[in-house]
Amino acid sequence: MPLTKRCLAELIGTFWLVLGGCGSAVLAAAFTADAAKISESTSYPLGIGLVGVSLAFGLTVMTMAYAIGHISGCHLNPAVSIGLATAKRFPARELPGYIVSQVLGAILAAGLLFVIASGKAGFELIGSNPLATNGFGPEHSPGAYSLLACFIAELVLTFMFLLIILGATDSRAPQGFAPVAIGLGLTLIHLISIPVTNTSVNPARSLGPAVFVGGWAIQQVWLFWLAPILGAFLAGLFYYYVFEVSPRERNLSEAQGQ
Amino acid sequence: MPLTKRCLAELIGTFWLVLGGCGSAVLAAAFTADAAKISESTSYPLGIGLVGVSLAFGLTVMTMAYAIGHISGCHLNPAVSIGLATAKRFPARELPGYIVSQVLGAILAAGLLFVIASGKAGFELIGSNPLATNGFGPEHSPGAYSLLACFIAELVLTFMFLLIILGATDSRAPQGFAPVAIGLGLTLIHLISIPVTNTSVNPARSLGPAVFVGGWAIQQVWLFWLAPILGAFLAGLFYYYVFEVSPRERNLSEAQGQ
Amino acid sequence: MPLTKRCLAELIGTFWLVLGGCGSAVLAAAFTADAAKISESTSYPLGIGLVGVSLAFGLTVMTMAYAIGHISGCHLNPAVSIGLATAKRFPARELPGYIVSQVLGAILAAGLLFVIASGKAGFELIGSNPLATNGFGPEHSPGAYSLLACFIAELVLTFMFLLIILGATDSRAPQGFAPVAIGLGLTLIHLISIPVTNTSVNPARSLGPAVFVGGWAIQQVWLFWLAPILGAFLAGLFYYYVFEVSPRERNLSEAQGQ
Amino acid sequence: MPLTKRCLAELIGTFWLVLGGCGSAVLAAAFTADAAKISESTSYPLGIGLVGVSLAFGLTVMTMAYAIGHISGCHLNPAVSIGLATAKRFPARELPGYIVSQVLGAILAAGLLFVIASGKAGFELIGSNPLATNGFGPEHSPGAYSLLACFIAELVLTFMFLLIILGATDSRAPQGFAPVAIGLGLTLIHLISIPVTNTSVNPARSLGPAVFVGGWAIQQVWLFWLAPILGAFLAGLFYYYVFEVSPRERNLSEAQGQ
Repeated sequence: MPLTKRCLAELIGTFWLVLGGCGSAVLAAAFTADAAKISESTSYPLGIGLVGVSLAFGLTVMTMAYAIGHISGCHLNPAVSIGLATAKRFPARELPGYIVSQVLGAILAAGLLFVIASGKAGFELIGSNPLATNGFGPEHSPGAYSLLACFIAELVLTFMFLLIILGATDSRAPQGFAPVAIGLGLTLIHLISIPVTNTSVNPARSLGPAVFVGGWAIQQVWLFWLAPILGAFLAGLFYYYVFEVSPRERNLSEAQGQ
Repeated sequence: MPLTKRCLAELIGTFWLVLGGCGSAVLAAAFTADAAKISESTSYPLGIGLVGVSLAFGLTVMTMAYAIGHISGCHLNPAVSIGLATAKRFPARELPGYIVSQVLGAILAAGLLFVIASGKAGFELIGSNPLATNGFGPEHSPGAYSLLACFIAELVLTFMFLLIILGATDSRAPQGFAPVAIGLGLTLIHLISIPVTNTSVNPARSLGPAVFVGGWAIQQVWLFWLAPILGAFLAGLFYYYVFEVSPRERNLSEAQGQ
Repeated sequence: MPLTKRCLAELIGTFWLVLGGCGSAVLAAAFTADAAKISESTSYPLGIGLVGVSLAFGLTVMTMAYAIGHISGCHLNPAVSIGLATAKRFPARELPGYIVSQVLGAILAAGLLFVIASGKAGFELIGSNPLATNGFGPEHSPGAYSLLACFIAELVLTFMFLLIILGATDSRAPQGFAPVAIGLGLTLIHLISIPVTNTSVNPARSLGPAVFVGGWAIQQVWLFWLAPILGAFLAGLFYYYVFEVSPRERNLSEAQGQ
Repeated sequence: MPLTKRCLAELIGTFWLVLGGCGSAVLAAAFTADAAKISESTSYPLGIGLVGVSLAFGLTVMTMAYAIGHISGCHLNPAVSIGLATAKRFPARELPGYIVSQVLGAILAAGLLFVIASGKAGFELIGSNPLATNGFGPEHSPGAYSLLACFIAELVLTFMFLLIILGATDSRAPQGFAPVAIGLGLTLIHLISIPVTNTSVNPARSLGPAVFVGGWAIQQVWLFWLAPILGAFLAGLFYYYVFEVSPRERNLSEAQGQ
């Protein structure tokens, strides 16, 4: 498959990640029966809450991994592409094309989400995290966590995310299940950390909504590029030097006809 | 398997989609402990909410895809049949039989749901979206989204749904996992868009309940035929011309003994 | 594997179904932060609600299907055993042993659940559905549905449950995925119908708690034997005569070397 | 793979189990829209509740089983290692290394969680179960269950957990699905028993947070070593002597060329 088609797949996939993940958060997280007009109660919490948003983010990756995994590998995330390149699973020369496509897809999705959300009277880009932007510190961490706590969380969670990706796509792991492990791994990461940073572990996902929110969101986006990429880079090094099959082991096992 | 048996499978499968999806919404979404008589609290929100309804819709498709996928391919949705035909994965001459069967199954399910729901004293077909009908605009979008926002949402979400279906059933994707990807993909689509249109992406699912609700529901059902079918058609074209294995590639890989 | 070992597996599996399903309902469905002493709020709804109970019932079957499927086939349900026998997938002469074991397992689990639940001060077998018993009519249907609505729901849902089981374990379906389809199919059935009958589709699961609750629960248990077994029997007939591979087709495909 | 690398994998995996499971409980279980500043409502229950925490615990195990199963077998739990050794699936001489690594990983995770949680103003190690510690009796069982109820629950649930593990990894079970069955089995166990003991079934997971909470948490930790290990040991014996393929059966089936 030529690079342009693979980049197009990455663009569409990251579009889906941001539309599905941020979209579920903006449109459905805090929905009430009152708004739904389906109950006499004025405040039945029908909304999907953080469980639903976590599930949505994970399912965007799982569905795309089955849909376009055979086209582009389905990274959908600059940190993932960099971590895979570090572990020598992806050619570094293709990083620019992949990352630009991921960022474009994320911006397109945030724009479309803005259009749909604006279709409801009274919608405004206000509050702590409009359009599901990521943020840190007392004003823009959803649970008011400090910059340090947010940095550590993003770094460690992206490190673990890449470990899951590198392990589940290892030739020694069961074949075909990697999208389940990786998608639900992203769900798990959101279950832990939405209150901390609104969960990024993905620089493209952070930049998309920030472009439309501007101001503070753009000023804080550096953390969501630095921490995830650093975590992914460290995980790539770690897996390659510690857990990867060494060339010598590979030759041995081939010589034994396995 | 003869066409009549396959059409019967489509009828039963779409019956299950509407009974399970709309049924969980009508019977269980806003259930309270008061109604359940299991708690002293008068308003504990035991109901399954939008997360549960999203899960239910997705699981109807996932369970049927494993149960009758080998019989009929398990489309359960006129837009899916049309998208698959556009991508040359399904013979266009079988579209009428499939679509009629899907619509009949959906109507049967809505009727049965009406019977069961009427078994509770005080049940009436009132409110914004009775029997889990789809709707748009200030009165019948659950979250009061405009016609334009609703049209865009249904178009884009059905486009992405077909991309998941076409990708996950591609011969290059892992075998056996397509029902998981497609079913949970439908769950994801509901997590995003129940507040917008009550989520259709399926003309048969929209028509079934509308037949019993009548009036506004029938008047608005055009959008839930037009937008999903247009989205599915565009996705079929896109996948076929951009991501599908070309005949030349297929021949090459066969010549190499793969 | 001798019949005694297979019956022991059915006993343990049905024990797990009732302990996990009814246990999650009794112990965790309506749990509050007040009880949890983890929040200043006196009524944060931490409990698992009907979504959690539905998930729990389904996961008992899914986990056991992977754990003991290779021992006994993992029916865990007299209606399932009868439906499989009707479709000629299970020898009818083994029905008595399987059904007695399933009932014993369910009673043991209900007893153990009673012991654990009694470990909390103030626990009593009162209310509409103590120990997660099944019931119908204004007093013992959780949502006060009529006998007729309850009968129809149990009949139709068990019919569809058996269709999922027979289809997903068909030799033409993807191998290894049946436990996912069947387990999450049971989750789906609970998402729809807990408000109607507290969901049975399983005579053993209904009898277990009824033995300890007595009175009305024993008087109403007939419906949860009759409707599920009738639904399963009809599904067995239907699948066998309509969707099953006919002997002639089987011979043809074998002759073609498939 | 040398023992040191496998022990490192166990350390990382158990780190992930405690960070993800206890982390989701501490950071996200009872989150409100008020804290999230995303709604006008002051108390919309956005938090993940016990369903989300149950899902998180299970997904830590599922993701790691796909990521490091091929490195260390992914036990992440001293009771699991002991149960596998009892069933002769794991060499007993490697127990010390595995268990020490699991405990270290759990302590590291609890420490990191303490650092992140402290990044929010006002965080304190108070209440019934700070840092998601396990406990029993009126003061430290989340739902105030007695010591006896807590002991029985931990014993029986760990017994069933090991049965799932031993069965799903049996050579006769479908290959590749064990992580799904085992991970979601742990989710199920949490759906049942968080109100009882905050759910352990894992001595390392209990010790990690207890080290930082001290006092009562350390005094009660004996139960979460004794009951799970006893349950796992009994399950190992049971599976080995009742359900395991006997050497004679194995020879027979090999002689028949299967």
